[in-house]
Amino acid sequence: MKVLVINAGSSSLKYQLLDMENEAVMANGIVERIGETVGKLTHKAFPDTDNEKKVVKEEEIKDHKIGMHMVLDLITGSEAGVISDPKEIDAIGHRVVQGGEAFTSACVVDGPVKVAIADNNPLAPLHNPANLMGIEVAEELFPGTPNVAVFDTEFHSTMPKEAFLYALPYDYYKELRIRRYGFHGTSHKYVSRKVAECMGKKADEINVITVHLGNGCSMAAVEKGKCQDTSMGMTPLAGVMMGTRSGDIDPAIVAYIAENKGMSATEVDSVLNKQSGLKGVCGLNDMRDIHSAVENGDEMAKLALDMFAYDVKKYIGAYTAVLGSIDAIVFTAGIGENDDITRALICENLSGLGIDMDFDKNNGRKGEPTAVHTDASKVQVWVIPTNEELQIAQEAVELLK
Amino acid sequence: MKVLVINAGSSSLKYQLLDMENEAVMANGIVERIGETVGKLTHKAFPDTDNEKKVVKEEEIKDHKIGMHMVLDLITGSEAGVISDPKEIDAIGHRVVQGGEAFTSACVVDGPVKVAIADNNPLAPLHNPANLMGIEVAEELFPGTPNVAVFDTEFHSTMPKEAFLYALPYDYYKELRIRRYGFHGTSHKYVSRKVAECMGKKADEINVITVHLGNGCSMAAVEKGKCQDTSMGMTPLAGVMMGTRSGDIDPAIVAYIAENKGMSATEVDSVLNKQSGLKGVCGLNDMRDIHSAVENGDEMAKLALDMFAYDVKKYIGAYTAVLGSIDAIVFTAGIGENDDITRALICENLSGLGIDMDFDKNNGRKGEPTAVHTDASKVQVWVIPTNEELQIAQEAVELLK
Repeated sequence: MKVLVINAGSSSLKYQLLDMENEAVMANGIVERIGETVGKLTHKAFPDTDNEKKVVKEEEIKDHKIGMHMVLDLITGSEAGVISDPKEIDAIGHRVVQGGEAFTSACVVDGPVKVAIADNNPLAPLHNPANLMGIEVAEELFPGTPNVAVFDTEFHSTMPKEAFLYALPYDYYKELRIRRYGFHGTSHKYVSRKVAECMGKKADEINVITVHLGNGCSMAAVEKGKCQDTSMGMTPLAGVMMGTRSGDIDPAIVAYIAENKGMSATEVDSVLNKQSGLKGVCGLNDMRDIHSAVENGDEMAKLALDMFAYDVKKYIGAYTAVLGSIDAIVFTAGIGENDDITRALICENLSGLGIDMDFDKNNGRKGEPTAVHTDASKVQVWVIPTNEELQIAQEAVELLK
Repeated sequence: MKVLVINAGSSSLKYQLLDMENEAVMANGIVERIGETVGKLTHKAFPDTDNEKKVVKEEEIKDHKIGMHMVLDLITGSEAGVISDPKEIDAIGHRVVQGGEAFTSACVVDGPVKVAIADNNPLAPLHNPANLMGIEVAEELFPGTPNVAVFDTEFHSTMPKEAFLYALPYDYYKELRIRRYGFHGTSHKYVSRKVAECMGKKADEINVITVHLGNGCSMAAVEKGKCQDTSMGMTPLAGVMMGTRSGDIDPAIVAYIAENKGMSATEVDSVLNKQSGLKGVCGLNDMRDIHSAVENGDEMAKLALDMFAYDVKKYIGAYTAVLGSIDAIVFTAGIGENDDITRALICENLSGLGIDMDFDKNNGRKGEPTAVHTDASKVQVWVIPTNEELQIAQEAVELLK
């Protein structure tokens, strides 16, 4: 079975074509700056193999449909093609950010599903409309091929009410649908199952804390395979601090900034999302730049790094308490997979919780699942590369079986 | 030495006169509804002793000065007096809510101190102006008697930067003084020292999590006598959910409510402070009413209770991680001292953190320091009645020695 995975943003479209016989990536790429004067398409056939072929095109790409058409031409073309006919694609898996309470698992897209996705637009105004556009373009270009929607929120739908409800007027939950939804669910699901496999256990036998640290950062408390709690909230702003997002703050600060800076609540929200986090503290939002700055004696960069590690450490403690006891912690995504310094800072002085990192094993970037705990550690610590595209493709295959 | 402790609110004034030779309460009381048509003064001489005398007056009390005058007349009067001359009072201790970064310890009030307190008014607009008014009334009525200011924030001034700073644009800290200050410091200080005494240790030998659960709720991670972190933030809205306050929520929710309800950020802030918390979830904000409702099968009350316990549990975990290991947990304040059901819910299933509550010992209200852990528990669990007035009086005595 061949599955095309699509992640459509407001002005971009990422894709990956997988051969699910061997879970190999046949092609992947990204269409960027859709709707701008000069758009860009970067395509790779057989990426990271000896047969890799890369094609870059820079030209106006008016809309997502035209972008997707260009991708289809490349995939089936002679220059960097990997299949000869679009009909070889058995299914298309779509990342959809906000499933709300309507979607607790992946589903095959039909009319009512599209209505239900659109119904969640107010909860994810930047993402859901774009995701839906990706689905509609795929329906047009691949008539007859089933589309499967996989939601960022679905893995978190098992949270109990005391974990997902905010202590706000209850009407706000019933009428405005304000609650914790959580995001990055596909990644948390993937690595929480992968770590069980690595440990020779079943997912429903172990308690795991998954730590997804990338541009966005989130953590999840996973109890016997099911999400019990997660750090992102109604939106991806909440939880641990991120590249440009504040994470949790005293909610009274919003009104305080609004008053003192003469901003609306929405303008403050934009500052919290785009000008805060690591960037707000030290001016840099890429952890690699931060490490360079720290090496050069930049104290603000060191502070940002310390704050980041401190935040994650607090959530590890909170989720240990919530789960009662944990069997493993998994680090994943850009920072989680590649940044040994940050991982080490987070895990320093956690032996009281049974977490003993082997700092030698931890050294370096990890391209594959790697255990980084000492033999004596009660809790296993793993670094596992996430693979949201593969998880989406697997769910599509599972669903269409 | 006799010390009068004053806690002045915007329309109320609580007081307590202590004889510091034996730390006995000579008199206490509250003036309420100051400025309203009918005010109320409730005064007790020798409270909770065989000699207790209670006086209640209901009449117009135009301002704090008149209220304080009435108190002074009672304290020195024949009906329910405890001293014969105001000059017997050696010092007056004032609770001041917001010390900002200017005050890291209690201090004798003089002109510059008053200016510095007023300088913190924007950070605590409901409290600091009232606290300052209390000081000025005392200066007028007790000329020559030293006034000592004790700040709710001072115990938390030892927090390291990674704990007190928010991941916001750094200018917001430098210019708008947005940071975590924490509150209830006098209570956290008192019970963290008291528990050391109860354990036969010095405060600087142990790590403690202090859990102050009253109308307002806050927790602190206390490392060898010094506050390392606390749950309230720039304002008392943050942290665990409370009677009517939301505690931590996704900060994006403020703008979302503002947009969907057509409110300003300040109006949303008011909802988060006054219509949220236990009250928002189930309509009740007194934990005793909630327990009654739960007994009568009220599912929303049960949900509110479960959310509350869940919140506290998460902070216990977070602070265990922050401190590396802990020696004791202390419950204090109204709910913490008297509510065995809530304490039990919080401590359920925490043996993974070394916390084993003895649920029999836990039963009932605790009028004095009581250990409620099992003999096998690695972490001791205590219930200790807080005494902020005594702590304030002790600091005044210490300072004036």
